[in-house]
Amino acid sequence: MQDLLAFLEESRRLVDDALEAHLPAESTEPRTLHRAMRYSVFAGGKRIRPALVIAASDLHDGRREAVLPAACAMEMIHTYSLIHDDLPAMDDDDLRRGRPSCHKAFDEATAILAGDALLTHAFLILARQSGPAPGHLLRIIGILGEAAGSAGMLGGQMADLESEGRLVELATVERIHLLKTAALISASLAMGAVLAGAGEEELERMQRFGRRIGLLFQITDDILDRTGNPKELGKTVGKDEAQGKATYPAAAGMDRANARARQLAREATEDLAPYGEDAGILLQLTDYLLRRSY
Amino acid sequence: MQDLLAFLEESRRLVDDALEAHLPAESTEPRTLHRAMRYSVFAGGKRIRPALVIAASDLHDGRREAVLPAACAMEMIHTYSLIHDDLPAMDDDDLRRGRPSCHKAFDEATAILAGDALLTHAFLILARQSGPAPGHLLRIIGILGEAAGSAGMLGGQMADLESEGRLVELATVERIHLLKTAALISASLAMGAVLAGAGEEELERMQRFGRRIGLLFQITDDILDRTGNPKELGKTVGKDEAQGKATYPAAAGMDRANARARQLAREATEDLAPYGEDAGILLQLTDYLLRRSY
Repeated sequence: MQDLLAFLEESRRLVDDALEAHLPAESTEPRTLHRAMRYSVFAGGKRIRPALVIAASDLHDGRREAVLPAACAMEMIHTYSLIHDDLPAMDDDDLRRGRPSCHKAFDEATAILAGDALLTHAFLILARQSGPAPGHLLRIIGILGEAAGSAGMLGGQMADLESEGRLVELATVERIHLLKTAALISASLAMGAVLAGAGEEELERMQRFGRRIGLLFQITDDILDRTGNPKELGKTVGKDEAQGKATYPAAAGMDRANARARQLAREATEDLAPYGEDAGILLQLTDYLLRRSY
Repeated sequence: MQDLLAFLEESRRLVDDALEAHLPAESTEPRTLHRAMRYSVFAGGKRIRPALVIAASDLHDGRREAVLPAACAMEMIHTYSLIHDDLPAMDDDDLRRGRPSCHKAFDEATAILAGDALLTHAFLILARQSGPAPGHLLRIIGILGEAAGSAGMLGGQMADLESEGRLVELATVERIHLLKTAALISASLAMGAVLAGAGEEELERMQRFGRRIGLLFQITDDILDRTGNPKELGKTVGKDEAQGKATYPAAAGMDRANARARQLAREATEDLAPYGEDAGILLQLTDYLLRRSY
């Protein structure tokens, strides 16, 4: 685990520095909007998605400087989705990672605009990169747009809202999780691979691996919402159940949820076999996602 | 005027057909989200911005098929901004063009997600175009991202919200109008010019012209909010004043507002001088924006 922790620590530092450089300064107008964007981006996220962009690039011998803007764009999309998710009309969460959520720290209008601005900015920084080949940049903009849009994350959020309070079949839960969570995780890996010049077969492998660990991530998230320690997690537990959310344990029970998590971790590990020892970080990450307690 | 009306009619037809093709189908999941996106896009907008994309391309001898996706992307961005603007936390408008606004026809959560999805989809269709050179596509994605982001439209919306109910100086009103309205109008012209292969000088000229007619558009909008006929306009008049919005007439009086509109129309007309008669449509449009009664 030492390797993984060191990698995550280094990647977080690189990403935080790059986010600092790529986000509009608080000293430029509109200041309140820029403050709100930065407030939510620097709210202590684990930076898992940008770490996956970097790890997929590393695995295909890419240059880290070349993928940092893509890593930042991914984190901006993730952050915007949390800001809009927390709004009163959506999940109505006053707290995010132990701090007031954006619309509580500012106001609802500012939170809506800050989310919109982060989403827009993500595409802007990808389009304005100078290093990578234009064809690669268009490809990753397409990957990000598809994964974040109505055929991906937003489609999952919509299905999630529509399923609230209903008895939902397991297949539907998996579909929601694949869209809401796995789409961006898979896109993170794909973006890193494209920028590193990976071939189509490698790209598909990364996306398949991404869908599996994305689903794994969400299932263990659902499990932790039932069994986790609020202090370790930094959030309330039991919230999904109280809101009548479609979760894996609710649809299939804890035993099957745990079994499905183990199966996904095993399949994800197999996806990485062709890389041998080079995939050490992603193998450890898969194991961590299975066993994590926060 | 016959030329302009015929051009606007033809361009609206082309754009509506292209939007039909580029928007996700209502029959695909998530259906409610796709229905909400289409409900707002096909709510009877005038399609001024996409017409400008086409006009700028025409003026620089571009192919219309090559600019239609950009015209659609621009209209999607415009529509998303209206959906989010109408939300209770923002301008709280129940009606848009005489029909229930998106959050009234659906609900708030769906309206937030539909806006997000249109914004995301705009960038996706630009990145996935196959005709234009990759460098041109990246350039227009950058132009759109900047114009729609915190340094453009969203910055204007934020400043607009912050100025509500305050006495605002004329310079601030112009700055808000330039960001909130002129940025996207200028970007529409720039995107059409880039795709048609215009040079840097022509591009700058289009952007300057766009800032002027964008400001002109917003000033006559402000004037019509005071003097217009609700039936012709298809919306309530006096709303800006009631909401304490920063408007040109409020900051400078009707006489100066009218004089500024005439000055901008004159300057915009001068911007077009190098094109001679080729600029007929844009010249007529400038005149229409000055004299419009709806």
